[in-house]
Amino acid sequence: MLTEFDTTLPSIRQVQNLIKQTTPVELKLLTGDVLTGKVLWQDPQCISIADENSQYTVWKHAIAYIKPKTT
Amino acid sequence: MLTEFDTTLPSIRQVQNLIKQTTPVELKLLTGDVLTGKVLWQDPQCISIADENSQYTVWKHAIAYIKPKTT
Amino acid sequence: MLTEFDTTLPSIRQVQNLIKQTTPVELKLLTGDVLTGKVLWQDPQCISIADENSQYTVWKHAIAYIKPKTT
Amino acid sequence: MLTEFDTTLPSIRQVQNLIKQTTPVELKLLTGDVLTGKVLWQDPQCISIADENSQYTVWKHAIAYIKPKTT
Amino acid sequence: MLTEFDTTLPSIRQVQNLIKQTTPVELKLLTGDVLTGKVLWQDPQCISIADENSQYTVWKHAIAYIKPKTT
Amino acid sequence: MLTEFDTTLPSIRQVQNLIKQTTPVELKLLTGDVLTGKVLWQDPQCISIADENSQYTVWKHAIAYIKPKTT
Repeated sequence: MLTEFDTTLPSIRQVQNLIKQTTPVELKLLTGDVLTGKVLWQDPQCISIADENSQYTVWKHAIAYIKPKTT
Repeated sequence: MLTEFDTTLPSIRQVQNLIKQTTPVELKLLTGDVLTGKVLWQDPQCISIADENSQYTVWKHAIAYIKPKTT
Repeated sequence: MLTEFDTTLPSIRQVQNLIKQTTPVELKLLTGDVLTGKVLWQDPQCISIADENSQYTVWKHAIAYIKPKTT
Repeated sequence: MLTEFDTTLPSIRQVQNLIKQTTPVELKLLTGDVLTGKVLWQDPQCISIADENSQYTVWKHAIAYIKPKTT
Repeated sequence: MLTEFDTTLPSIRQVQNLIKQTTPVELKLLTGDVLTGKVLWQDPQCISIADENSQYTVWKHAIAYIKPKTT
Repeated sequence: MLTEFDTTLPSIRQVQNLIKQTTPVELKLLTGDVLTGKVLWQDPQCISIADENSQYTVWKHAIAYIKPKTT
């Protein structure tokens, strides 16, 4: 799908900050899954997140929300 | 996705009002989750909502509805 | 998302009629929820519906169907 | 959403035929609901279907499939 | 929704081949349903599939995957 | 739907790499299904994945995430 990727948008910048600061995050998916890990990159279609074992490339259309991991 | 963000639209203005008035809201997601808190910002893609513990960046495509929190 | 809002379309006009006639409606959501109330307004993104207690702003992408409330 | 409504497309024409022939149909929704009735009209966004009791305006994005009712 | 229908795309051509070869297929839907039958036609919005009893017009947005039927 | 297929995007290139390297992957779908196999091709609409028994053509709109198979 044609995707907006205006890097001045708050939502795009926030994910960029999570990448730079290597903040542990929770990613809730529309499937009900919660992925935890660090965000590696985003592009207009996907967000990549890695934990110790795996690297997930998650389609944005499948994401409900992202939040810093509660400690 | 290319997103309409015409700030004269009632739905965009209503969320702007919820932000200004720091109204506690309920956000029902397509996952069935209900997030409660105050809306911090919106952009064409996302709405950010915070409670005492966490800040959620929620993709609009995952939102079913928003309503002022029933007291 | 870029949204069509051609007020000559039957589906747009029908919702406008429900607003004018303050017809009680049922709104079935993709979450399985059924909201009942009167339609207050629509714009290209959302439909707002109110019952005695609450006002819901519902994203159209989350709506399965609307129907006049069966009495 | 911007919607294609090219009346030469087979899927659009088929629904038009169902309307003209007042064929009883089953409409399976992404919610799992199955609506049965006759198709009254379609526009780029919605399909309207009626049974003896109710008239449903169904958003196309919520439809899984349409089929002539099995007798 | 505006739909790409570039007949040189592998996914479009593959469905065209399934039509020509009248290959029995399984169509898994986002509802969890699995439809089995032969593909009759596709257009930018829909894929039509028929078994002995019924002809289903399935919206592409509701399809998870298509595969040749395992024998 | 009009689909971005910019082969310089990280998400597109990553899938291309999975194809070239014939990496076993897991594909989680919005239906909750997990398909495992090797990626054969992608186009703007679909990703094709094969295991020993079957070849699945999966619509991207139905994909939650892709990850290298954990061994």
